[in-house]
Amino acid sequence: MNTESPSQSAGNDIGTSDPTIDVLGIGNALVDVLSHQSDEFVESIGVVKGAMTLIDEDDATRLYDTMGPGIEVSGGSGANTVVGVAALGGTAAYIGKVRDDQLGDVFGHDLRATGVRYDLAPAADGPSTGRCLILVTPDAQRTMNTYLGASACFESDDVDPDAIRSAAVVYLEGYLFDGEAAQDAFRSAAQIAHDAGRRVAVTLSDPFCVERHREAFLDLVESHVDLVFANELEACSLYECGDVETAAKRFSATGAIAVITRSEKGCLIVDGENSIAVPASPVDQVIDTTGAGDLFAAGFLVGYSRGYDLDRCASIGAIAAAEVISHIGARPQADLAGLASHLL
Amino acid sequence: MNTESPSQSAGNDIGTSDPTIDVLGIGNALVDVLSHQSDEFVESIGVVKGAMTLIDEDDATRLYDTMGPGIEVSGGSGANTVVGVAALGGTAAYIGKVRDDQLGDVFGHDLRATGVRYDLAPAADGPSTGRCLILVTPDAQRTMNTYLGASACFESDDVDPDAIRSAAVVYLEGYLFDGEAAQDAFRSAAQIAHDAGRRVAVTLSDPFCVERHREAFLDLVESHVDLVFANELEACSLYECGDVETAAKRFSATGAIAVITRSEKGCLIVDGENSIAVPASPVDQVIDTTGAGDLFAAGFLVGYSRGYDLDRCASIGAIAAAEVISHIGARPQADLAGLASHLL
Repeated sequence: MNTESPSQSAGNDIGTSDPTIDVLGIGNALVDVLSHQSDEFVESIGVVKGAMTLIDEDDATRLYDTMGPGIEVSGGSGANTVVGVAALGGTAAYIGKVRDDQLGDVFGHDLRATGVRYDLAPAADGPSTGRCLILVTPDAQRTMNTYLGASACFESDDVDPDAIRSAAVVYLEGYLFDGEAAQDAFRSAAQIAHDAGRRVAVTLSDPFCVERHREAFLDLVESHVDLVFANELEACSLYECGDVETAAKRFSATGAIAVITRSEKGCLIVDGENSIAVPASPVDQVIDTTGAGDLFAAGFLVGYSRGYDLDRCASIGAIAAAEVISHIGARPQADLAGLASHLL
Repeated sequence: MNTESPSQSAGNDIGTSDPTIDVLGIGNALVDVLSHQSDEFVESIGVVKGAMTLIDEDDATRLYDTMGPGIEVSGGSGANTVVGVAALGGTAAYIGKVRDDQLGDVFGHDLRATGVRYDLAPAADGPSTGRCLILVTPDAQRTMNTYLGASACFESDDVDPDAIRSAAVVYLEGYLFDGEAAQDAFRSAAQIAHDAGRRVAVTLSDPFCVERHREAFLDLVESHVDLVFANELEACSLYECGDVETAAKRFSATGAIAVITRSEKGCLIVDGENSIAVPASPVDQVIDTTGAGDLFAAGFLVGYSRGYDLDRCASIGAIAAAEVISHIGARPQADLAGLASHLL
């Protein structure tokens, strides 16, 4: 635990006064367009399979024109997580920007319909609601092509300080670092949360996102957050190393708890000198891995916001992740609170 | 066979010159919003479970606000059918009206991406693209609430005579009768098709739709179409009778071939004095019955456009219907042409 960082709280008790929200997520507000495609198709468009590539509006139009038929589902990594929190019986809120268009309506509806508080008004002008064109290959992998649209217009003024102060944990999506104004909003939210004695969590989101913003992420992990989610590739990308053990060692020297997710191998929790491995939950058939990390974070954060032991937090996360990869789409379809009731 | 109806063609050979399209569908262009809901919810909104209720824009907004999270998938009964035709390896085209908005883009993309020809320009003003709010209950039944939007603005001028003449079969969706201007477009398309020596098929779509427009449907079946699809309720509604045998008898006196679908009991084909029962295809688990009739029609029409025996047509339809009810959404996800290859 980095004692030089007064903004990072000690132990696992939350805040100075009772929070009314368990988890408040901040992220890019996107509608996913999911389409089954062949490996050859993914190769032909020249993107890295399994990763997230940022595309502009023209690219998005071009790609959409060549893609097969899709289904539209509200997405956005952080939004998926808070929906998972609500599905697990937690109280959740969200901040992220859409336009006042049909896809923006869909995004807002789907959040509120799952019980997530979402008060940020849609933009009346500027780019349309962002979307993520997701190519699902026969191996259930998802390759994401994101047009940020209105979500890139998210800025500090969009952060409601009262909402931040009322949340036990503020959860920041790493993808947000791709928006210039969003980075400021991100840091501002973290500061408000810590000033109110709340916890701040971040997910590194994507190895290439980490590469694009490594310095900013390192600063964040070293000094500004209490909890970091990263998969193996993201962890290695952050510390520019080739193995997860080295990355874990580096994490252990920060003041933050690191949760390194390892797909079917479960996760590794690094908390200073201690590390705990927690297994994944069994899945009959993996259909679509979209949202696996988002829902793992949802489960973990529900436990974390309640001060549960870290391995229990991870076990709740594993159950939520297993549910979401067993069907197409990044939001839960089954009764998550029921599935995880023995741990909640 | 009603010999007094010169517009109805004899036998099962198609047209006077080679058609370039197997099936051209005309219908309400809608985007489906599918949501899992309880029976209590369906009851609470006061609609008939399993049926299609027309709602206005205000009702649609109100219902959407109370509904759970949804997924958006291109729909429209006739559009689902032509997508099925294309998925079975047939050539297909579609006529139906959307607005130039985001949901209209989605609708057009999903049709074209499956290989369906869709040339009608979106409306530049007027109501937004129509949508169907579909409540899927735990018994896999779907209850549909349709805001017609732009699709109700479909009119005779939107019918491309050349496209009609180039199609072996024009397939008309009964739901279209709910739009006043659409009824004229409907009859005009049927006339153009018959003048070119093509076949005209219609589906009765919904028992309440039949009730709303019984006289028009009776006139159509008696004198203007070659092939009618109806489920048991629709057939009984048309002839205001309580059993399917009576309805079948009435159909046998028209000049049209009637295909009465009976869910898991398969279908009954009534062709004048002859009637043939064809069994349904087995399904492991029924997940969502949305699109069952649409896809049955797709399979049947592919065979019919090629002059196959009627029982073979129905067997192709049964395979397509079985696929679509085994997952959520009204459009095929598996390789239909592969599943039905022994019959194509």
